[in-house]
Amino acid sequence: MTARPLPPGSTIGILGAGQLGRMLALAAARLGLRVHVYADEPGPAFDVAAAKTVGDYTDLAALERFAGHIDAATYEFENVPVEAARLLATRVPVRPGANALETAQDRLLEKALANRIGAETAAYAAVDGLDGLEARLKAGFALPAVLKTRRLGYDGKGQIKIAAPTEAEAAWQAIGRNPAILEAFVGFRCEVSVIAARGIDGALRAFDVTENEHRDHILHRSTTPARVAPATAREAVTMTERFAVALDYVGVLGVEFFAVGAGADERLIVNEIAPRVHNSGHWTIEGARTSQFEQHMRAVAGWPLGAPERVADSVEMFNLIGAEADDWARLAAEPGLAVHLYGKREARAGRKMGHVTRLHGRNRQNPS
Amino acid sequence: MTARPLPPGSTIGILGAGQLGRMLALAAARLGLRVHVYADEPGPAFDVAAAKTVGDYTDLAALERFAGHIDAATYEFENVPVEAARLLATRVPVRPGANALETAQDRLLEKALANRIGAETAAYAAVDGLDGLEARLKAGFALPAVLKTRRLGYDGKGQIKIAAPTEAEAAWQAIGRNPAILEAFVGFRCEVSVIAARGIDGALRAFDVTENEHRDHILHRSTTPARVAPATAREAVTMTERFAVALDYVGVLGVEFFAVGAGADERLIVNEIAPRVHNSGHWTIEGARTSQFEQHMRAVAGWPLGAPERVADSVEMFNLIGAEADDWARLAAEPGLAVHLYGKREARAGRKMGHVTRLHGRNRQNPS
Repeated sequence: MTARPLPPGSTIGILGAGQLGRMLALAAARLGLRVHVYADEPGPAFDVAAAKTVGDYTDLAALERFAGHIDAATYEFENVPVEAARLLATRVPVRPGANALETAQDRLLEKALANRIGAETAAYAAVDGLDGLEARLKAGFALPAVLKTRRLGYDGKGQIKIAAPTEAEAAWQAIGRNPAILEAFVGFRCEVSVIAARGIDGALRAFDVTENEHRDHILHRSTTPARVAPATAREAVTMTERFAVALDYVGVLGVEFFAVGAGADERLIVNEIAPRVHNSGHWTIEGARTSQFEQHMRAVAGWPLGAPERVADSVEMFNLIGAEADDWARLAAEPGLAVHLYGKREARAGRKMGHVTRLHGRNRQNPS
Repeated sequence: MTARPLPPGSTIGILGAGQLGRMLALAAARLGLRVHVYADEPGPAFDVAAAKTVGDYTDLAALERFAGHIDAATYEFENVPVEAARLLATRVPVRPGANALETAQDRLLEKALANRIGAETAAYAAVDGLDGLEARLKAGFALPAVLKTRRLGYDGKGQIKIAAPTEAEAAWQAIGRNPAILEAFVGFRCEVSVIAARGIDGALRAFDVTENEHRDHILHRSTTPARVAPATAREAVTMTERFAVALDYVGVLGVEFFAVGAGADERLIVNEIAPRVHNSGHWTIEGARTSQFEQHMRAVAGWPLGAPERVADSVEMFNLIGAEADDWARLAAEPGLAVHLYGKREARAGRKMGHVTRLHGRNRQNPS
């Protein structure tokens, strides 16, 4: 597909009003693009959007009106109903497309796609009921394993570890008796992610591979570059491009991997994909020549992608979770620390309130 | 004066809705600060502000209501009526204060302050009528000279060159017979500016001195660092700090100088001051560790200032004037070029539509 780029002054519709939508809106504004945010309740993106609509993601009439006000649409979270994306796509380009949403929303489709493109996943099995779960465990599915809902899981929600077959029923109850997959537990050395953008011309621009450290299932720190072998990093980008090509993807895509083994045995196991800008790409705002947010808006508007090069020897990003953001005055006083706060009023436990970024070492040579 | 910093979530009022207000709003959003823009007509800043009011700058009742919605106020252009700033100051901190506006609005007060703090200015004389102008010329005021209105001049408007005494009447007509000053023409080697921020604690953080090239009286290119001797650059910063101290200034201040002479004879002549973020500081968005826009919002909110260090060997900023912005697609495709478009609908001749920034050479060592 080739299409003409949307000129400055065009309006990009964003489904979702969280911090990702907010940072997308800020990047869009720099490029002279207007943003119209559609969300089921006001959120951080509303404060920086030219227009906003509060509506349910299943309200097709409201979405139809929204489509009349925008020149292209995107989304900032992967649990947007696929029907909403399909409806918008009858009126304007939706980037990435509904198929990416559909795949990312379902762990089973996601794993199947990964295997189809030649990426390794944890051993897994579809689980549609307690009987099936017990049968799998009886048949010798390797333990410990993790039972995860096929749909609507994030930040560790909708998943539970199973250490022994006797835990099957409790686990099935714990995830709400929803269609699930049983995954072999992966003993990984580290978690890494690739954030890459694909333009309407099919060009892929990947940022350097990032290493991620979680606490309580929430991203705590991202460090770039990741401590993996160069060949492993290349492999991660190759797999990411295959996902993008398979999904006919336009926009920023995040792919999370587990790195297992060491030395010559180091290899990657796909964890999941995110059809959107990603928390582990926040370092690119200061740390890369073009941020993931600008790349995404460039792709959505059909513009050429920007240069993805890292600008410092290494870059660290820390999330500010819950009360950690109360420390803003001390953080703002630290020389060289870039502070980002999302404008959320209430600092609930586990809530992403902001992040900070620090560049380390000598900056890199510029291409110019 | 010491005051407590305004916490994230506070609302900063900005008078003026142009591109400077827009870039201030984007910087505020990153820090978790809300922005309420007040302007006499909608402008580029409206698209990224949490709240906006259309009102006349002389409508004291509307300004009073505006004051009720904000925690501090600032302005993005220096022709805001001083009365508006004074009214707001009865309700909330106004940073920089009304006195800075008053001085910057009047070339006579500005020149007098420059001389008071020990800065050199062009020879000048107040002109209140044609008789006075003719008398000055008869008394031997050096020609060529420039006749400038005392108030409301910008981008070369409100000024005219006088090459011979016979041109007095035409010049007086040309500037609208307004109170004026007659300035000796300065044969300068280059124009430079200092953009600096002063915090509520009195700390000053100056960006590196920038060299400016104008075309048709509008800034065309800024290059940092300026090609002046280190001692000259230090002197420029010293003079800027003296202005800031004399005005009890909080926020970003721009001071424009002419550099005259060369080698050991190089010296600076103050041209004018701008009590706001400044076009010649746009390079700081990519080229300095903290941008002028973030510095200003930090100062206005009473936060500690950020690190002002330049991050590359040199930085170039070009304005996109009028139809130059039509070239956006080519500019967006240039690797390493940062493109900023202001979202103005109509590309009138002489109108600032956007700017582009390029970093050159090896980036600098980070402090961390």
